[in-house]
Amino acid sequence: MAKTSNKLSKKAGLAPGTLLHIGAKKSDHIKITAIDYTATDYNEILCDTPQDCFPLKTSPTTSWINVDGLHNTKIIEEIGNYFELHPLLMEDILNTNHRPKMEEFDKYVFVTLKMLGISKSGHSIISEQVSFILGDTWVISFQEQEGDIFDVIRVRIKENKGIMRQQGPDYLLYRLIDTIVDNYFFVTEHFSETIEQLEEKVLKTPDQMSMHQIQKLKRQLIQLRKTIVPLREAVSELQKDRTNLIKEKTLRYLRDVYEHIIQVNESFETQRDMLSSIMDLYLSGISNKMNQVMQTLTIMASIFIPLTFIAGIYGMNFENMPELHWKYGYFGIWGIMILVIIIMIIFFRRKKWL
Amino acid sequence: MAKTSNKLSKKAGLAPGTLLHIGAKKSDHIKITAIDYTATDYNEILCDTPQDCFPLKTSPTTSWINVDGLHNTKIIEEIGNYFELHPLLMEDILNTNHRPKMEEFDKYVFVTLKMLGISKSGHSIISEQVSFILGDTWVISFQEQEGDIFDVIRVRIKENKGIMRQQGPDYLLYRLIDTIVDNYFFVTEHFSETIEQLEEKVLKTPDQMSMHQIQKLKRQLIQLRKTIVPLREAVSELQKDRTNLIKEKTLRYLRDVYEHIIQVNESFETQRDMLSSIMDLYLSGISNKMNQVMQTLTIMASIFIPLTFIAGIYGMNFENMPELHWKYGYFGIWGIMILVIIIMIIFFRRKKWL
Amino acid sequence: MAKTSNKLSKKAGLAPGTLLHIGAKKSDHIKITAIDYTATDYNEILCDTPQDCFPLKTSPTTSWINVDGLHNTKIIEEIGNYFELHPLLMEDILNTNHRPKMEEFDKYVFVTLKMLGISKSGHSIISEQVSFILGDTWVISFQEQEGDIFDVIRVRIKENKGIMRQQGPDYLLYRLIDTIVDNYFFVTEHFSETIEQLEEKVLKTPDQMSMHQIQKLKRQLIQLRKTIVPLREAVSELQKDRTNLIKEKTLRYLRDVYEHIIQVNESFETQRDMLSSIMDLYLSGISNKMNQVMQTLTIMASIFIPLTFIAGIYGMNFENMPELHWKYGYFGIWGIMILVIIIMIIFFRRKKWL
Amino acid sequence: MAKTSNKLSKKAGLAPGTLLHIGAKKSDHIKITAIDYTATDYNEILCDTPQDCFPLKTSPTTSWINVDGLHNTKIIEEIGNYFELHPLLMEDILNTNHRPKMEEFDKYVFVTLKMLGISKSGHSIISEQVSFILGDTWVISFQEQEGDIFDVIRVRIKENKGIMRQQGPDYLLYRLIDTIVDNYFFVTEHFSETIEQLEEKVLKTPDQMSMHQIQKLKRQLIQLRKTIVPLREAVSELQKDRTNLIKEKTLRYLRDVYEHIIQVNESFETQRDMLSSIMDLYLSGISNKMNQVMQTLTIMASIFIPLTFIAGIYGMNFENMPELHWKYGYFGIWGIMILVIIIMIIFFRRKKWL
Amino acid sequence: MAKTSNKLSKKAGLAPGTLLHIGAKKSDHIKITAIDYTATDYNEILCDTPQDCFPLKTSPTTSWINVDGLHNTKIIEEIGNYFELHPLLMEDILNTNHRPKMEEFDKYVFVTLKMLGISKSGHSIISEQVSFILGDTWVISFQEQEGDIFDVIRVRIKENKGIMRQQGPDYLLYRLIDTIVDNYFFVTEHFSETIEQLEEKVLKTPDQMSMHQIQKLKRQLIQLRKTIVPLREAVSELQKDRTNLIKEKTLRYLRDVYEHIIQVNESFETQRDMLSSIMDLYLSGISNKMNQVMQTLTIMASIFIPLTFIAGIYGMNFENMPELHWKYGYFGIWGIMILVIIIMIIFFRRKKWL
Repeated sequence: MAKTSNKLSKKAGLAPGTLLHIGAKKSDHIKITAIDYTATDYNEILCDTPQDCFPLKTSPTTSWINVDGLHNTKIIEEIGNYFELHPLLMEDILNTNHRPKMEEFDKYVFVTLKMLGISKSGHSIISEQVSFILGDTWVISFQEQEGDIFDVIRVRIKENKGIMRQQGPDYLLYRLIDTIVDNYFFVTEHFSETIEQLEEKVLKTPDQMSMHQIQKLKRQLIQLRKTIVPLREAVSELQKDRTNLIKEKTLRYLRDVYEHIIQVNESFETQRDMLSSIMDLYLSGISNKMNQVMQTLTIMASIFIPLTFIAGIYGMNFENMPELHWKYGYFGIWGIMILVIIIMIIFFRRKKWL
Repeated sequence: MAKTSNKLSKKAGLAPGTLLHIGAKKSDHIKITAIDYTATDYNEILCDTPQDCFPLKTSPTTSWINVDGLHNTKIIEEIGNYFELHPLLMEDILNTNHRPKMEEFDKYVFVTLKMLGISKSGHSIISEQVSFILGDTWVISFQEQEGDIFDVIRVRIKENKGIMRQQGPDYLLYRLIDTIVDNYFFVTEHFSETIEQLEEKVLKTPDQMSMHQIQKLKRQLIQLRKTIVPLREAVSELQKDRTNLIKEKTLRYLRDVYEHIIQVNESFETQRDMLSSIMDLYLSGISNKMNQVMQTLTIMASIFIPLTFIAGIYGMNFENMPELHWKYGYFGIWGIMILVIIIMIIFFRRKKWL
Repeated sequence: MAKTSNKLSKKAGLAPGTLLHIGAKKSDHIKITAIDYTATDYNEILCDTPQDCFPLKTSPTTSWINVDGLHNTKIIEEIGNYFELHPLLMEDILNTNHRPKMEEFDKYVFVTLKMLGISKSGHSIISEQVSFILGDTWVISFQEQEGDIFDVIRVRIKENKGIMRQQGPDYLLYRLIDTIVDNYFFVTEHFSETIEQLEEKVLKTPDQMSMHQIQKLKRQLIQLRKTIVPLREAVSELQKDRTNLIKEKTLRYLRDVYEHIIQVNESFETQRDMLSSIMDLYLSGISNKMNQVMQTLTIMASIFIPLTFIAGIYGMNFENMPELHWKYGYFGIWGIMILVIIIMIIFFRRKKWL
Repeated sequence: MAKTSNKLSKKAGLAPGTLLHIGAKKSDHIKITAIDYTATDYNEILCDTPQDCFPLKTSPTTSWINVDGLHNTKIIEEIGNYFELHPLLMEDILNTNHRPKMEEFDKYVFVTLKMLGISKSGHSIISEQVSFILGDTWVISFQEQEGDIFDVIRVRIKENKGIMRQQGPDYLLYRLIDTIVDNYFFVTEHFSETIEQLEEKVLKTPDQMSMHQIQKLKRQLIQLRKTIVPLREAVSELQKDRTNLIKEKTLRYLRDVYEHIIQVNESFETQRDMLSSIMDLYLSGISNKMNQVMQTLTIMASIFIPLTFIAGIYGMNFENMPELHWKYGYFGIWGIMILVIIIMIIFFRRKKWL
Repeated sequence: MAKTSNKLSKKAGLAPGTLLHIGAKKSDHIKITAIDYTATDYNEILCDTPQDCFPLKTSPTTSWINVDGLHNTKIIEEIGNYFELHPLLMEDILNTNHRPKMEEFDKYVFVTLKMLGISKSGHSIISEQVSFILGDTWVISFQEQEGDIFDVIRVRIKENKGIMRQQGPDYLLYRLIDTIVDNYFFVTEHFSETIEQLEEKVLKTPDQMSMHQIQKLKRQLIQLRKTIVPLREAVSELQKDRTNLIKEKTLRYLRDVYEHIIQVNESFETQRDMLSSIMDLYLSGISNKMNQVMQTLTIMASIFIPLTFIAGIYGMNFENMPELHWKYGYFGIWGIMILVIIIMIIFFRRKKWL
């Protein structure tokens, strides 16, 4: 997430609708699979060419066409043309830096959002763009690479669990978005734990390392916010649906997703607040340490500098220094010095520096 | 409130409406009680099975069915099915991390919110989720555990005090919410006192401990804000009531609750401002202490380092040092040293460091 | 204003409309007075019992009934019952912690707000709650204690100055609110002066005391804001009047009051900004002082530590130290030491530390 | 702008519409002048008494009546009465602390705003209140004192330049406001230059003086903001004109003024941001200086304290100290001391402190 | 961008619509070129005088007239007059400090915005104002100087690539704006890289230089924000088009541009957040360095000051000092001193200062 190697400026000057894959090439080849079902039937199709899945467009059954891999713009374009997708929409699918959004067209609704995950090292956030197009009897999904979190849905459709098979493509779209949003909770929980650990560390030893970690987490939260806030708008828009592609009944489910997104967003807000409070802790920890260092110095110096001065006095070589000749002069001086030490200690005790 | 052991991510991948209890198991068994009343009659029912309270759904009397304990999803589901509650609503009841909200359905209104309290130690906030469903003649309440703050209401109904028995279930719902909100004032007052004590402490001895306490209180306020703000929205929505389940007359009462919520929220805002002003006090206290430490060091060093130097001069062993042979050289040097001390003290007095 | 001894939580669990006086008992007995006037007639009534003023409700003349003292809930209740005031409204009148608000009822409009003043010591803000009820021919005002700022109005009515006697109760209400709001300017001016004095003090001697004063003023401003902001809303609502109790002509006067409230609020905002800028001054003053302290130390130490070292060298007792035997060794060493001092002074001058 | 000697609280308790001049008396006598013009005719009138300009009210020609000086409330009142101005409006004209606003009346529109300028010393902002009343054939302007920035307009009318003479009083009002707003750009440019100079100074020598200047500028910007923001609202309101006094064509010109106000406001916002960034510079400059001071002390102390210790060792008077008797002991010690110095210098170099 | 030599105050007092070129004179002469096309025809015209391009106004073909250079107000005025452009519009074209905006007129739409680029040194942002006027069959563009980023569009029209030639002037306008906005991504990417480099530098060596760079970047971002935010409004307004000059189909393309502007703005916001987090890093780096400096001083002083004191003791010249005569007194003292050193080191190790 740190490096923005997928430069958007590549597009500058190109005509709109020029299909250009923007993003890291995460997959080697494009894989198209389709699931076709009604309340009673179920069909799985592996499409070698985009054409294999074209009949699904007009069939009355509910179909889910999933495309993994976006780098081969030609195949994507063929699909787009057959399903009469708007060129700008195709551009958005291929631009993996696109912010989540929802757009309505005459015959379909377009939604693009991000799947989030934690990298195996636990130190970075993985983000993958997923785009959905909802038609009258079909849903097409575009993912950057193979392997996703939708297997639970596939199983439910296949094994005819719950109400999935009774519902149309709008419910399928809801379930896909819902699964992605539910997955965000893993990320918020991961952050909560990381932040708690960080706080404990800062309480014990506030060092420059903690500072870097705070900064890193802050930046990740800013990035996540940029993913969540437009998604909230998009799902809110989706509920207003002016296309009649989404059934009344499904709207209530979408409202549920909407609430989850708000909750995820609130978590991120809270975590941001916690990070700044950890940073306050850190800074006050640094100040306290400085105070301690200075107190130590002040105590040592205040005790020993006067003593050294006294010793210096009687190290002078004046001929006429009566004390030097007193029998117990040396011991008397020791007495004075011990007195000075005691006075100093009492003074510092009173100031609560010792 | 600190630990989020009740992980929402448990739900990821499950179908919507899958009933899953999210939250700590606070109660051992589910207890269902019901109160059934009209202006003239009063009936108390302890339901051993959910079925015992089913007749209340259709009876014309006003009924309040209270369910304590949420862990047995099967019983909850039975009730839900009989009262034709939407699966998503059932899910929200069982998810004790849900943010307060209000949702309208065809035949009932759903409200979920938090009861707040102070733990016995006085150091943490206790939060318990309560959900209400308002039907045409009944209210169902779901609580996480037995024991609540509603006994005043039960007594008023039983003893037929005030206008409770004359009113329908909408007034009952109002009274339940009102009781919860009134209880929030205990929490704001507790916070006010804690913050006042903290301020006094910070004024006297600003140590790292106070810093931690400030942070802790800040975090609790953030949590409380997350409870209050959505509740405000919910009650505001409730006033717009499009279901006709809430009578005109009750709406004015709801407006009163709404104002109380705003007042609670304002208290939290004020307390947040006070916390940051305490933190400013703390930080400036630390700075002042540092200043004092450094002044002490500077005064000690500035007085004794020159004196030590003078003593060092006459500790040199040069053969030709005329002063050493003067009769009153030693005493003269003492005079010079005392002069240095006086000059220094005057200098520091002028600078207001002494 | 600091202590909230009038705890709102006293109310928790009570039925709505239960009359309970919340607030310090500021007055010993309740005093009810009434003024009854038309363009031509004028009548002053001192009501020993509430019943004495009941006829004013239905008389066609404009009447102003003023109630001083709120602790005797019974008398208040009698008035409320006779004038058919809503129980929740009565509750709000008695709760002297209520935030300013305006509420419309079928036959009257309710407004509650705060009178503000400066305590005699000049160190704290005095706040007293005043509530008004505007009926078709009457205004009732409830105050916490005797003695108010309305005497100018009483005199104008009595002596038939200006247009007051020609106008109805809506104009009277406007004049009462206007008088209260005009009085707020005393408070803003008092604050302006206090803040200017504080700034001068901080510029001269930034000590921990100034910090406390900044904090105190900040908190008072937060409290005042809580008084002004809801009042703005209330007067804004009042202008929308849906009851026809307020005449077209009076609305323009209300708009004038509204502008004054905005101006008061702006003053408080400006004063808040000034307080934080004074705090910045304070903190930078502390930093500067620290810098000065450290510079003094550094200069003293940097000059005398090397000199002490040189003296130390020639205080060594080695047998073979040729310099000791030079005739002008001692004076040469003095020369070197003076040279060191000069170099140091030049160095610090260049650094602008001296 | 610093002192608020013109106290608003003077008005507390007075009846609304009581004319009271609030503000410094800037002019000795009131001067009334009028310009009366049509596309073909032009007339200049110096009115000794207000009555001299009364005929202009009903004449079909476009008239501009300008009143300089506000302290003689009687004259102002006469004008107000003749032109049937609302008492509250008259009050606003005389209150020179009034925030800019626009108000519509049946037969005229009232606008009040501030002329801004830089004092000759360049250190303070001069603010003068100007009020306009736009009638069907006339504009009345009220200024605090003689001398203004409207001479360009007078010349254009007199010499019949541009379209001024063809247009009605609404266009005249626009031109007056436009001239005032264009003048604001002088203030923003003055601020830009002052801030740039301040920044350079802070970069070179960050002293407490710069801090004061930052604070002063900040406060002036807050004051200016209070002038601009309500003006924006007022001109925005003016564009909605419900009185038909402003012609369709003039509205587009008002929109142009509106944009200029936005631009002025944006400049002030930017300058505020720049001031806080200068303050950050200042604070970090102070920190850096402190660091340098401390490094100097640490280097001096770390080098010379060990050396002094070594010298102290061989200044001891033990009988049995073999080194003292070595022939080259003294020179050997010098070697060791030089070695210590070199090691220290290398150490500090590595730390980049030297 | 730093210097505002193009003073807006030049305009103060001038009549509206007075054409005055505000801005640096970037071009020596005005160059007018035109492209005239239909789906089948293509024509390039170099207009020596403005009159050469006047026929394009009424021709049914789509025409794009481009004007480079704005300093010759006379030529600009001739064009304006012929195309019946509003005087205020002409003023805005010539004022190169104008904020981006969109304004609708009866027969045309006016849009003005900024082209952004990075200077060759990479240290500053170059901003050039471009204004567009969209008529029924023509687009006129005004640029400050020759040379632009529109050559891709010219080539596409000339070589009849894509759908450009089939579309009307509204699509041409969209493509021009789109090209400018796409170019903004270069600026955001440049900033991203600069900020990443800066962060690395601050982590290694936090010096006052980095502080200046942070401030400089911050200020540039503020400037850019002032360019982007009003552009967002303008394009949003453009989508609402009430003139029917923009076809339904083109609106969707404008929405795409709108999204890009939002994305650019978000990037700037993120970068602003990153800058403040870098500044936090910087400040905490400074604190840490200070801590290290002080620890070094404290350790050196705490170890050697007591030792020097011990040495001072035995440098005293008392006659009666038994230790001086002990045979191994000197070596014993060494032992004690080494012990002190060891104790100190252990103490500082425990405190984690060593």
